[in-house]
Amino acid sequence: MGNKNVTAEIIAVGTEILLGNIVNTNAAYLAEKLSELGISCFYQSVVGDNAERLEDTIRLALQRSDVILLSGGLGPTEDDLTKETACKVAGAKMYCHEESKARLIAYFEKRGLTLTENNYKQAMIPEGGIVLTNNNGTAPGVIIPFENKHIILMPGPPGELKPMFEESVAPYLRKLTPDVILSQTVKVCSVGESMAETMIADLIDTQDNPSIATYAKTGEVHIRVTAKAENEAQAEKLIKPVVRELKNRFGNNVYTTREDVSLEAAVVELLKSCDMKIMTVESCTGGMVASKIVNVPGASEVFKCGLVTYSNKAKRKLAGVKKSTLEKYTAVSRETAYEMVKSPEVWQKADVIVGVTGYASAPEEDPSKAGLVYVSCNACGKITVKEFKFSGNRAKVRESAAVQALVLARQCLLEALSEKTFGDN
Amino acid sequence: MGNKNVTAEIIAVGTEILLGNIVNTNAAYLAEKLSELGISCFYQSVVGDNAERLEDTIRLALQRSDVILLSGGLGPTEDDLTKETACKVAGAKMYCHEESKARLIAYFEKRGLTLTENNYKQAMIPEGGIVLTNNNGTAPGVIIPFENKHIILMPGPPGELKPMFEESVAPYLRKLTPDVILSQTVKVCSVGESMAETMIADLIDTQDNPSIATYAKTGEVHIRVTAKAENEAQAEKLIKPVVRELKNRFGNNVYTTREDVSLEAAVVELLKSCDMKIMTVESCTGGMVASKIVNVPGASEVFKCGLVTYSNKAKRKLAGVKKSTLEKYTAVSRETAYEMVKSPEVWQKADVIVGVTGYASAPEEDPSKAGLVYVSCNACGKITVKEFKFSGNRAKVRESAAVQALVLARQCLLEALSEKTFGDN
Repeated sequence: MGNKNVTAEIIAVGTEILLGNIVNTNAAYLAEKLSELGISCFYQSVVGDNAERLEDTIRLALQRSDVILLSGGLGPTEDDLTKETACKVAGAKMYCHEESKARLIAYFEKRGLTLTENNYKQAMIPEGGIVLTNNNGTAPGVIIPFENKHIILMPGPPGELKPMFEESVAPYLRKLTPDVILSQTVKVCSVGESMAETMIADLIDTQDNPSIATYAKTGEVHIRVTAKAENEAQAEKLIKPVVRELKNRFGNNVYTTREDVSLEAAVVELLKSCDMKIMTVESCTGGMVASKIVNVPGASEVFKCGLVTYSNKAKRKLAGVKKSTLEKYTAVSRETAYEMVKSPEVWQKADVIVGVTGYASAPEEDPSKAGLVYVSCNACGKITVKEFKFSGNRAKVRESAAVQALVLARQCLLEALSEKTFGDN
Repeated sequence: MGNKNVTAEIIAVGTEILLGNIVNTNAAYLAEKLSELGISCFYQSVVGDNAERLEDTIRLALQRSDVILLSGGLGPTEDDLTKETACKVAGAKMYCHEESKARLIAYFEKRGLTLTENNYKQAMIPEGGIVLTNNNGTAPGVIIPFENKHIILMPGPPGELKPMFEESVAPYLRKLTPDVILSQTVKVCSVGESMAETMIADLIDTQDNPSIATYAKTGEVHIRVTAKAENEAQAEKLIKPVVRELKNRFGNNVYTTREDVSLEAAVVELLKSCDMKIMTVESCTGGMVASKIVNVPGASEVFKCGLVTYSNKAKRKLAGVKKSTLEKYTAVSRETAYEMVKSPEVWQKADVIVGVTGYASAPEEDPSKAGLVYVSCNACGKITVKEFKFSGNRAKVRESAAVQALVLARQCLLEALSEKTFGDN
């Protein structure tokens, strides 16, 4: 295959996926792995357990890609026809692969199960095919080399497909690709997607290698820089100056440049780095901010506790909001958000207290207030309150509010730290 | 379209999906919805933000299906070219849709954001296209009728796509199918998928019209009964006896037969019906149970408050767990779970107190304990504790634990109610 750019596509076989019974997580897994291997994947498709449509799909894939990764349809039933169809397309005959047959018999014996005649179908292998041992199930995988292309069949269950890919398919594919692909993601908060794109329009317009792409997330924008080079060091060298430039432009709004770090993980890391503790006082988000923080492994070091004060009574009794404040300004107000983080009645105050109160859906008394949210933060005694007007349904408003609470906590904490270092108090 | 069977296919547009950055959950959602509408879907595909390949994919889809559902690529950036490409294929020119433009301006103004030139791209609509209002974001959807076929463009974020499908696309598609398809879902908790299938194997084997399909959800199984008939009344008549039979077989484990009622909504309804209040005391779920409850509109009537007691200190100070219990049995134990719901130190006890403690990921001292979770419930003074061993990553374990906490709360509440009515205490 020399220096040619290797292309692949992924075909998932299974009527279950077409009916929406299961989510096609195999495709996401394989796509990510291909990307890591520097193999371009331009298409994914799903086709049912239907010989004709599957054949058409494989033929089309062979016209446009070098590697065809098929998952599913290797079982013992009549519905399972991926191997048969791939063999038809490749003009390959099948034979009984004795080693696979022996494994199959051993697998059933070990579990005290009875092997039925149709099970032997799984030991049939196309001539010229490379058998991929399945250590987690009965269906072996197969690679069928065909006219300088590679048809790769893997079982559908993720618990069988993933280890087979790691153990057998990835090493095979690595030999086909000369280049290394490396990417790094600059994650930005407090800036909208189109604003972010405007801020880097010149970089995007002149991009080539590395390429730059933006991805909008709730309350965040991710900017991915991807380079292709002969080796990892060279790819890194291409990426570095672009990431540096992005960091310059977005400054403090870049919360991480690491793939596996979420906004909440960045907040947890920041808290850890300055040995501070956080607590949450939530109304409309109802525990979502706390839940995001707790989802970060090791959060226990920085997470003090969380209060879900959805009712007015809970706001008074647990969060220490004054009755007069609730009566005068209502529960969704700048004043209530302020008091929620001022001195919640717990055994000891946290360094950072973040609060959220708002209308997740339209309140009866004034439907126009749907999505009105106040986020507050008490960082080392200094309280900041921000007003937002989110759109969308109840779940969307709550998600946006929870993300903005984390963004505010991060901002206030950074500010408090800079004052601590350079300020006069 | 007469009596012909309507076929559809789903095309997700986005390099993100091809790179494996995100899982294509839209496809599963749309596939399920098409199945409900009685529309056959034989293909799903994914293509990147590339005009040429997208064009090829749309052209191929038009050759083999009546309805093409596209998601993604409607954003304001240069990468977003779904609308442009679909227009090219359909030979449709675009014009600025004043209403969409006004919505866009209002959307930005409302949030105090600056509208940049590229945002206006989202208000461009193909001539002859039907605009689908987006109530949860900036990109309107469009239906382009083309040579007796229907190209339907929807935004990629699930929070925008799903409501748009429900509000605008489903009613449109319903008109294309001559038969009425009606379905009802029997939602079952406390029973695994394969157990559920075994319990209704005879019904599934003999199914025809209505058809019966099971869908495994985290901690739940949904059984959908779908009938096809000339009119709604006839379809209802077909469905009714099957739903009745399912309710007989699963008894109390059926928590609803209504499409729009989630498990948490069923718990909230049940609490409302008996005028009881619930509170949560969460460790590893970190507020997720509270958050699920608060996501139900009207939850304020039954939700007292929530405590997130992730640290041992918080378990002691907020939830009233004894120091000796934590020392003797550890934080993840039947005993701690019991005390968490026994008498959490809040101003007044709730009728139902639900608690969760567990290892969301592998603890250093004993990695084999990953996924070990205790869920507890105090319903009117009677405490029940259940042990679970969930598999999957941190997020998956936490989600499973949160669902089981709701299941337990429901079970204990039902039990308490039956004792109240028929028992002697």
